[in-house]
Amino acid sequence: MRDFTLTVTRVPGCLATAAGDRRAPQVNDNLSVLDRHREGESGGIGSGLPARGIAILARCQVRFNRDFIGTYAKSFRFAHRAACPEVELPPVINARDDRPVTACLVVPGKIAFKTRPEAPLAQACTLMRTPVQEGVVLAFHMEHPDRMSVQVDDFPATRGNIPNHCNNVSSHDNNQSSAGGASPSDVDAFRGQFPVSRAMIWRNSRKDWNQPMARNINITVIGAGSATFSLGLVKDLCLTENLKGSHVTFMDIDAQRLWNITGLAERYSRELGADLRFTQTTDRQAALTGADFVINTADVKGHHHARRVRELTESLGYYYYTPSALGHFYNFRLMLDIARDIERICPDAWLIQSGNPVFDGTTLMNRHTNAKIIGLCHGHYGYLEMANVLGLDPSRITWEAPGVNHAIWLTTFMHDGEDAYPILDKWIEEHGPTYWDTHVATRTHDIQMSRGVIDMYRMHGLMPIGDTPRLVGWWYHTDLATKKHWFGQPWGGPDTEIARPVHVSVLSERLAQVDAAIKDPSVQVTSVFGQTRTREQQVPIIDALANGVAGCFQVNMPNTGGIVAGIEHDVVVESQAWIDRGGVHPMRPARPLPASVMREEVMPKVGEMERGLEAFLTGDRRLLLLDILAERKTTSYDQAKTLLETVLAMPGHEEVAAHYR
Amino acid sequence: MRDFTLTVTRVPGCLATAAGDRRAPQVNDNLSVLDRHREGESGGIGSGLPARGIAILARCQVRFNRDFIGTYAKSFRFAHRAACPEVELPPVINARDDRPVTACLVVPGKIAFKTRPEAPLAQACTLMRTPVQEGVVLAFHMEHPDRMSVQVDDFPATRGNIPNHCNNVSSHDNNQSSAGGASPSDVDAFRGQFPVSRAMIWRNSRKDWNQPMARNINITVIGAGSATFSLGLVKDLCLTENLKGSHVTFMDIDAQRLWNITGLAERYSRELGADLRFTQTTDRQAALTGADFVINTADVKGHHHARRVRELTESLGYYYYTPSALGHFYNFRLMLDIARDIERICPDAWLIQSGNPVFDGTTLMNRHTNAKIIGLCHGHYGYLEMANVLGLDPSRITWEAPGVNHAIWLTTFMHDGEDAYPILDKWIEEHGPTYWDTHVATRTHDIQMSRGVIDMYRMHGLMPIGDTPRLVGWWYHTDLATKKHWFGQPWGGPDTEIARPVHVSVLSERLAQVDAAIKDPSVQVTSVFGQTRTREQQVPIIDALANGVAGCFQVNMPNTGGIVAGIEHDVVVESQAWIDRGGVHPMRPARPLPASVMREEVMPKVGEMERGLEAFLTGDRRLLLLDILAERKTTSYDQAKTLLETVLAMPGHEEVAAHYR
Repeated sequence: MRDFTLTVTRVPGCLATAAGDRRAPQVNDNLSVLDRHREGESGGIGSGLPARGIAILARCQVRFNRDFIGTYAKSFRFAHRAACPEVELPPVINARDDRPVTACLVVPGKIAFKTRPEAPLAQACTLMRTPVQEGVVLAFHMEHPDRMSVQVDDFPATRGNIPNHCNNVSSHDNNQSSAGGASPSDVDAFRGQFPVSRAMIWRNSRKDWNQPMARNINITVIGAGSATFSLGLVKDLCLTENLKGSHVTFMDIDAQRLWNITGLAERYSRELGADLRFTQTTDRQAALTGADFVINTADVKGHHHARRVRELTESLGYYYYTPSALGHFYNFRLMLDIARDIERICPDAWLIQSGNPVFDGTTLMNRHTNAKIIGLCHGHYGYLEMANVLGLDPSRITWEAPGVNHAIWLTTFMHDGEDAYPILDKWIEEHGPTYWDTHVATRTHDIQMSRGVIDMYRMHGLMPIGDTPRLVGWWYHTDLATKKHWFGQPWGGPDTEIARPVHVSVLSERLAQVDAAIKDPSVQVTSVFGQTRTREQQVPIIDALANGVAGCFQVNMPNTGGIVAGIEHDVVVESQAWIDRGGVHPMRPARPLPASVMREEVMPKVGEMERGLEAFLTGDRRLLLLDILAERKTTSYDQAKTLLETVLAMPGHEEVAAHYR
Repeated sequence: MRDFTLTVTRVPGCLATAAGDRRAPQVNDNLSVLDRHREGESGGIGSGLPARGIAILARCQVRFNRDFIGTYAKSFRFAHRAACPEVELPPVINARDDRPVTACLVVPGKIAFKTRPEAPLAQACTLMRTPVQEGVVLAFHMEHPDRMSVQVDDFPATRGNIPNHCNNVSSHDNNQSSAGGASPSDVDAFRGQFPVSRAMIWRNSRKDWNQPMARNINITVIGAGSATFSLGLVKDLCLTENLKGSHVTFMDIDAQRLWNITGLAERYSRELGADLRFTQTTDRQAALTGADFVINTADVKGHHHARRVRELTESLGYYYYTPSALGHFYNFRLMLDIARDIERICPDAWLIQSGNPVFDGTTLMNRHTNAKIIGLCHGHYGYLEMANVLGLDPSRITWEAPGVNHAIWLTTFMHDGEDAYPILDKWIEEHGPTYWDTHVATRTHDIQMSRGVIDMYRMHGLMPIGDTPRLVGWWYHTDLATKKHWFGQPWGGPDTEIARPVHVSVLSERLAQVDAAIKDPSVQVTSVFGQTRTREQQVPIIDALANGVAGCFQVNMPNTGGIVAGIEHDVVVESQAWIDRGGVHPMRPARPLPASVMREEVMPKVGEMERGLEAFLTGDRRLLLLDILAERKTTSYDQAKTLLETVLAMPGHEEVAAHYR
């Protein structure tokens, strides 16, 4: 048992935790002062953490609540006296070892503690915040006591502005100076630079910390034949100074498309004067050799196969339906193969899973391999669509949308540090009806401010974000007319028989552009594909992990640390994380998802995922049948059974049919 | 920090945990021996527990798994060294205080532990068993170290045979000598009398233990106008020697029925020579004064109101549907009122909740009052219907059917200590089709061996018991023809438009019998209503709690102790418990419910219950709408909205409509 220290740092201008949350949870604030230190004091047993004029350092005993100890019992053992749970203090660690740590709390205001906690910990660590009382954000961080003293200046993010990729990817550019979405009053908080609504301390990896920038990163892209994705990645790499020397390996099973993409990428890199090197291969294992990062964007059966499945289900009386547990078979198998290859061939590589099913697939890989996995999606940018319609500057918005992929809900939505939900409410009252009657989407996915999404908001008191409304609320999805009513003209959202062909044709046009460009060497690739960065997170995340250009990202990661309360640790959740050289540090959302959202929307998605994984792992056909029966569009047992057998008998599904017995 | 002792007792003839479970969980058996004592040794620091030739006593450290510590962190703090979880050891306590305890383990075979655990504990305690490795049942019990030494003979159940009310209520009679469903090879286990599949040690309450039998028990029945129930209760009391001196208070809002029932009860008691005294009142608070036991069997709106609601939903396109969250309003309110009255008027009384909704209502009362609550249902007797059809002697069956009320699944089904599921499988193969084609039910609830229940068994590998198939598997319930197919002739189970009137008319006939008997003083009440005990558990439970005539019962109780893994502690679950003067000691089922049953059947019921309670407590009309939308019979948003508003506007629903905004 070693000594422990809690460092308490006062941060002004804090987040009002209760604001804007219509169903704000009761926050327990009955911590009581035993030993409070003056602001500005510093020190403590075994602590090398500096105070820099704003630290209060105290020996504390925090009273932990059941949930806290409960959820993290594997890694935490608290002192005998640390009983009588009183405050919900979130955990910090995904512990693999059991070493003691220093506990460090960043709190504004009148937080107070008793004597010392005792917490043997942990290899990996987690960052999170928690409301302690109104107006208080508590960031909690644990680290090994034997790590080096760290000066605040050691953290690269405090040298300049905080890059906040969740808010605005373009702010990541080193020559820009966005405050990362924090309001001015926030920004003077932590050494004048740290947005309080993101108050945190993060852990660096000792071995990495003083290393120079890593310029020769090996990046492998699986499914590189996707023109939009691969060229976007190359564009982002060319526009990221630190990564201009990277080596990119494109892998795809379609050699022709691979050849085209690689050729264009080389021209693009040359035009921009970047020092990128490219390799192409159809051999996946060769592609993984030496990889530092593996990006999997493959979709084994493409859009056309999905269309054939939908045609078949339609013939059996279903409106626009694909049996998902069954449909994931090929991608599940590929994902597991890739993650297992990574374990063997390049065990230190990060796998950035960029193709669906992100939720199910990353959970599967995380459970059954040791690969380091980050799952990415675009859905969270729905908050930008909200800002756009509401006329708000995205850079002044602070937001959080935790949940699981495709079921995320906007728990925090602030503008200049003030709750922005009232702005939404005013818009709904004054402009909503006109917008819903007159707005005509130009992109199939433009549904964030639709009648249906606002209706879901009214139901739960929180906005569902991005892809979420595509998959919840069966009653909005029963037929085309209903979908048009709820998700707007002209397509009724992206998941209709008239929208999907539009989406697919956009992708086909992009492929045609690639073909045309490859045939004509005189074409300036930069003029065809542009010179602005995409809003994809892959390259900024690589820069964070490889070069310590740290930032905040919306990622899918295991629920270690209980980021989303009520979900098992080995399920992958989606939320914000701080990413730096030390890895992915999940940030517990300031506000938990309300009970109704968890019960009605998130947990059913978790159940569906679990059913699909159990089906895949056991090959039990009964679970596929249960999956079809769980689908609201199914009207009878016979219909479900017929559908299952018919889909399994479909040409192209021989392996699936053999797998499920 | 006090000293602790683990007492390890060898029990031969143990339960084979993997047998008969098609989806047996992996059992972790890597406990390792540090300090193993010879069989027959006894002793230990702070322990007064006797060995009596079969105890192994050891100082142990058990390695706990995360779940264990996690779930019970509020009451347990384990020693610093108790890390590295390795075995799933179930918890023992619903701790309200924090006193140290003695840990006592009853294990057959090669279980072994390391040094001592450290476990400050707990006012109430829980008994449970857990599989440790194949062939081993581990019972774990914690108790206060300052309690008196207890001799095995102190436990009344070991003096004679083990009464097992779950199996066969008639075995409770003191002059009978059933072995409680344990097989002969089991029965010679613990002092030659304790069935091993129920291996346990139970805790007595020091203050009660040496008290004489309590002959003057005050029992209050709320909703006593229910003729069948009240006369059955009186019959059971008259036939229970220890309770013949009890005082019964009948309370109902219907004074006429109350008068009739009381008159008949008095005659019945006189005819049998029992010394029961009766009071009747329409004043609930008066009825509670001095009560030791309160039995609530009231149903605020009766069958006729339910029929009118169904007629209304039918007119809106629903087949046989009652919106349950909405429908529970009156009973929820009554239950909370009663439990709060008990807190105030008779805080030491036990509330035996005997009316629906048992699951929702007992969870509600448990969360919001301090009343001591036991919920009862009849559904678990479905295993007797199975035994009957299979031609098995119920007294030779060992069974467990945990879950939540109306969603219980037969995890253990043994005959003479051997897995009896193969007997069921053989019956299905050889006799099932004939039975389903030819069997004609004479009771509306006779569905346990129907085609639908066997189909659910095939789906999950476990039999759903009793009321369970009435409420799960929407596809069996879409219309009358479908229900007849799955649940048999002539009614298609109890929940059809043709079955319900039959059920109600049986109840009316019983009321008419009461009326006739009351008008004719020459009638021998015993000849009309019989002289055999009912299979109701209320009176045996009262005898156990009041007089220590302990036994095993199927009850609804808070999930303290994690009896059903994966369900929150403050949710009421249904499973077996040992009941004695010390209280209700939940027994953790030998086998957990498989993941698919939890995910597909049990957790959705929990979610539904939570939705209903949140709706009731918040008065949020949106949650009622979500409840109707969650119903599979709902086909559109408009239909759900119309239904909600129409039902709320129904005469008799004024208070509901005012409550939900």
